[in-house]
Amino acid sequence: MQARENRRVVLAARPKGEPRAEDFRLETVALPSPGEGQVSLRTIYLSLDPYMRGRMNAGPSYAAPVEVGEVMEGGTVSQVLESRAPALTPGDIVLGQTGWQEYAVAAARALRKLDAARAPISTALGVLGMPGLTAYTGLLNIGQPKPGETVVVAAAAGAVGSVVGQIAKIKGCRVVGIAGGRQKCDYVANELGFDACVDRHQTPFPRELKAACPQGVDVYFESAGGRVFNAVLPLLNPFARVPVCGLIAQYNVAQLERGIDRTPLLMGAILTRRLRFQGFIVTDFAAQAEDFARDMTQWLDEGKVRYREDVVEGLENAAPAFQGLLQGRNFGKLIVRLAPDPTKL
Amino acid sequence: MQARENRRVVLAARPKGEPRAEDFRLETVALPSPGEGQVSLRTIYLSLDPYMRGRMNAGPSYAAPVEVGEVMEGGTVSQVLESRAPALTPGDIVLGQTGWQEYAVAAARALRKLDAARAPISTALGVLGMPGLTAYTGLLNIGQPKPGETVVVAAAAGAVGSVVGQIAKIKGCRVVGIAGGRQKCDYVANELGFDACVDRHQTPFPRELKAACPQGVDVYFESAGGRVFNAVLPLLNPFARVPVCGLIAQYNVAQLERGIDRTPLLMGAILTRRLRFQGFIVTDFAAQAEDFARDMTQWLDEGKVRYREDVVEGLENAAPAFQGLLQGRNFGKLIVRLAPDPTKL
Repeated sequence: MQARENRRVVLAARPKGEPRAEDFRLETVALPSPGEGQVSLRTIYLSLDPYMRGRMNAGPSYAAPVEVGEVMEGGTVSQVLESRAPALTPGDIVLGQTGWQEYAVAAARALRKLDAARAPISTALGVLGMPGLTAYTGLLNIGQPKPGETVVVAAAAGAVGSVVGQIAKIKGCRVVGIAGGRQKCDYVANELGFDACVDRHQTPFPRELKAACPQGVDVYFESAGGRVFNAVLPLLNPFARVPVCGLIAQYNVAQLERGIDRTPLLMGAILTRRLRFQGFIVTDFAAQAEDFARDMTQWLDEGKVRYREDVVEGLENAAPAFQGLLQGRNFGKLIVRLAPDPTKL
Repeated sequence: MQARENRRVVLAARPKGEPRAEDFRLETVALPSPGEGQVSLRTIYLSLDPYMRGRMNAGPSYAAPVEVGEVMEGGTVSQVLESRAPALTPGDIVLGQTGWQEYAVAAARALRKLDAARAPISTALGVLGMPGLTAYTGLLNIGQPKPGETVVVAAAAGAVGSVVGQIAKIKGCRVVGIAGGRQKCDYVANELGFDACVDRHQTPFPRELKAACPQGVDVYFESAGGRVFNAVLPLLNPFARVPVCGLIAQYNVAQLERGIDRTPLLMGAILTRRLRFQGFIVTDFAAQAEDFARDMTQWLDEGKVRYREDVVEGLENAAPAFQGLLQGRNFGKLIVRLAPDPTKL
């Protein structure tokens, strides 16, 4: 049997600042046959997420970087083509981490079988997947929201922020989102039910944010950094908690900015207002995955949590869509469809 | 009866940057008679502590500022002269917050009677007082040191740092101090039993600190800020905890420094290394005062905690001593003796 051709996107060069088209390379290689315990897979959905920008750097981070020439990392929902593992059968739909490619060979034990009857399979990359678990664990473990408190959520229309705010509403908080543009803000306030959403593109953004938080801010779910962070910092109440989930505004910054060193302001605020800042990665809370799946499935069934997907077609559009993600151009959980969804046929 | 003359130090002007002699004024006023429920007091010991610098500023902080013309705030150990409260008798030794003055009138309920037989009365301002409780609660609640971990302590020869490190040793940690000058470092390593102490005045300080922490840093007890903080930040291990107790290096900084904004470095470290930064004030943990008193008394009795006092004589020397404190010129808990200690006569 002739080997199957696999198209994939590899890291061509390490970006300096914003990733450019030349930092990615689309190439075609032969797909190997699965070995014992492995399966071959056809990718249906590829997840695009901000953390991938960190993997493109050489520096140490919480995970090993993607090497130049290697396939870009990414979560995927795939269909099993051929199986040499007893647990999986051709046709099964699985969640994996097989990267930016149309086909893959993977160990069955690194995959999780999905039940298409329970939820749309794409949600395993979003509201029921890593972004949802990130929102759930970061907010509840570090943010510790109490009824009546004010919770501010950066990137409120995004895959993580949209879930953070809706869980905070379920917990009885006043929830204020921050998003880029009027359309996203309308969605956050009207569709997701946040109490308010402030447009960070508006000139008096810090003033509008302050007006939207008359009682100050008790929890700030941070995924932005930069000027969004600078606007929130003065509003943090004594004993406020700041789960640090991401810093998208600084991922593309190759060099520290000249100007004023604001570190003393931040440290002084932490001291005098007894703030708690804590970084986390979703895998730190892997033990809570079952609690999350139970709660989130129920909230979805009850209509208490809603979600939106931004689906791009075709592997050749993955890199441009990822560039747009880092600039906030997506609207909802960004997913690339690499093959027709067999559960929707 | 003629009114008693009381010498006191008031805030003459709000300092810009380092406090100057002109920012304090020594004045003599008549001491009022105690009202119902009050006592008149003669101050024996006045505590000088870095937090007082914050009280000299107008800006909001965790406590109201001292107003211009008001007596400088400060913890004191005093002897009761005259009592109009049933709980106290002339001759009693009490702990209070009566400020930089030789005499005071205070409500009995704002005072705590001390037992001179139990410990030297000056320790109520230091190892058995607010600095000791600060060390104990900040380290144990936020630092959460585990046996075998590396704990780094700023201002290790100081009133708080010296206690932090000794408690961390009791908890089975490797403890590295940072202090200013060879003499203090020798004291910290040889007398207090830290595993190492690094001199922040030495040119290769960041390199020496790194060499003293071959396993990285799991807990950093922050009271310094500035370049000490910059040297510790790269050494923090994943999941490290940073109780933020003080920032003495920046208390006198009137203006943010131009140069490079290092905030993204700090936030990036918090994110990727999942650090926990948390500010605290000793009063946040007032409920633990009894546990502290029990443990610390036992540790002192067992010789597991040692302390050193730096005693200055006379109210006129309070302001110069305080200026020196902010520059790290004291060596041990800084105390001003305003009258002979009657328990030592």
